[in-house]
Amino acid sequence: MVDRTDRPARSGEFDLIARYFAPLAADWPGAFGLTDDAALLGVSDGVDRVLTTDALVEGVHFRPDDPPDRVARKALRASLSDLAAMGATPEVYSLALQIPAERDDGWIAALVQGLAADQSRFGVTLIGGDTVSARGPAMLTVTAIGRLAHSRPLRRNGAAAGDDVYVSGTIGDGGLGLRACRGEAAGLDAAQRQFAVDRYQLPEPRVALGPALVGTASACLDVSDGLIADLGHLVRASGLAAEVLLDDVPWSGAAAAAMDYPATERIAAGDDYELLFTAPPVQRDAVTAIARTAGTPVARVGRTMPGSGVRVLDSGGTPLALARTGWRHR
Amino acid sequence: MVDRTDRPARSGEFDLIARYFAPLAADWPGAFGLTDDAALLGVSDGVDRVLTTDALVEGVHFRPDDPPDRVARKALRASLSDLAAMGATPEVYSLALQIPAERDDGWIAALVQGLAADQSRFGVTLIGGDTVSARGPAMLTVTAIGRLAHSRPLRRNGAAAGDDVYVSGTIGDGGLGLRACRGEAAGLDAAQRQFAVDRYQLPEPRVALGPALVGTASACLDVSDGLIADLGHLVRASGLAAEVLLDDVPWSGAAAAAMDYPATERIAAGDDYELLFTAPPVQRDAVTAIARTAGTPVARVGRTMPGSGVRVLDSGGTPLALARTGWRHR
Repeated sequence: MVDRTDRPARSGEFDLIARYFAPLAADWPGAFGLTDDAALLGVSDGVDRVLTTDALVEGVHFRPDDPPDRVARKALRASLSDLAAMGATPEVYSLALQIPAERDDGWIAALVQGLAADQSRFGVTLIGGDTVSARGPAMLTVTAIGRLAHSRPLRRNGAAAGDDVYVSGTIGDGGLGLRACRGEAAGLDAAQRQFAVDRYQLPEPRVALGPALVGTASACLDVSDGLIADLGHLVRASGLAAEVLLDDVPWSGAAAAAMDYPATERIAAGDDYELLFTAPPVQRDAVTAIARTAGTPVARVGRTMPGSGVRVLDSGGTPLALARTGWRHR
Repeated sequence: MVDRTDRPARSGEFDLIARYFAPLAADWPGAFGLTDDAALLGVSDGVDRVLTTDALVEGVHFRPDDPPDRVARKALRASLSDLAAMGATPEVYSLALQIPAERDDGWIAALVQGLAADQSRFGVTLIGGDTVSARGPAMLTVTAIGRLAHSRPLRRNGAAAGDDVYVSGTIGDGGLGLRACRGEAAGLDAAQRQFAVDRYQLPEPRVALGPALVGTASACLDVSDGLIADLGHLVRASGLAAEVLLDDVPWSGAAAAAMDYPATERIAAGDDYELLFTAPPVQRDAVTAIARTAGTPVARVGRTMPGSGVRVLDSGGTPLALARTGWRHR
């Protein structure tokens, strides 16, 4: 881990790494205390890995006044969600951190506190990275690696016509939380508002569900662009169409209570980090059992069919015309 | 690979990935054409890997007017140099790219052209990443993974007292090239000036030498902060001191010809990306043979001893007082 801080008012390169980042790497002997040019991955156990890289940029993926510990946790969790969507169990990660000139050691310490909390929660360890001080927004780039039991990843392209479509958790809370942060979420009480903000700032990567779905789900991804947009990605990769029954999509109490946030907007909002997956109808009992074991609520919301595109049906079975199907940051 | 471009004037997310980045991933089946949430690393061959993350930021590690193909190649090469320093052979990498709002598709196409050239030169493949459009400087974060024969990485902490100190290539050219880019390198003819600029913009990662040194070198790192600063890192990690004979440090003709760029500044300049390593005297013939096989010039420049710190001796054996021992970017 090479630090290239060029701002003398902040801790020097070795101090920054030794004080803040090396403790995060203590549990991984091959990280060598972040003192060498690279870390030993140690994969001679014959288990395949998957790798994902995600960058979160201030002003695009998080707000300048989001608490730094939560910003760091969200960056890590976004990557863990990608690993879960591939059916992998998180193992290690590296972090490249661009530190804006106006941030001091306290900001870094708070980031690190957040990472430490999530490392112990999700059983992952920092093994390397880079820090750079520069003008411009804060940026956190996480590259995470996960272990893949059975060497078979979940893919987007494995769905077959007639598969059921499932989603974990509830949909639209991330988008609601962003509105709440902006003071735009009318109709919520204080607890609902906090719930929504938490869902936006601290998404819950489905790290138990994803690996458990390997062998049962036919295709999977995580909902980051919005339920309908991401289902579009899945069916496009699989060469299919899909229908979603709007009444079957699970909502939180907060999302249902929000004014000016109809179901058609919730399914187009992003940042849910729920798993969206397909499985043949013969697997319904298996999916139910897996969800129970993983402790993750799962709802069946639709089905796939020959064709292309995603249709959303109202309670009468009528396709809805959606103004937006995906979410773009900012 | 999830793109989060939010600038409509540039190609949309799928276009950007499909047109520019997916072709870079074509040789790695587990990258799935960059269509999924993560890439399959495929390490069930029982070979250990090492991982390194390096971030290059516009205005800090490269100049806004550096050619984009060279910026991309330098970002990749900096990571390959880290892998080489650990004794690993480069295999795959991911790229997180922060694209400034004022850059268009042509800039991205040039970056990708540079990456394609170096992929084929160094035998590495893109397997994932992320692109974000944001205000602020361009930033390229490369996470590279290399294969480690014999499961033994080269470390910084393995030197013993009495080991020889070696360096590959020539020292100070990167710093000279930066001066040349700024129009500050007097005394150079046109060819020397171009040589220096090339060395700054296109460092040569010693990918053949590093892995060949495993089992022979006792410690190794790559010279990024400057010869003396990096030797300081090595001896500190090994609990030793070192002496360098200034007359034995190899210079290029350009560095020797430059005015106002004495040897004492060359050994403090950064961005050399040469390998600095130690080996016991009994290995001198082995080091010579490895260097010849790798096609990489190597020079013996000093030795280690009990104590701490790095001394630089002139031709009369007198320790020099150095004004600066390391290089800080910008």
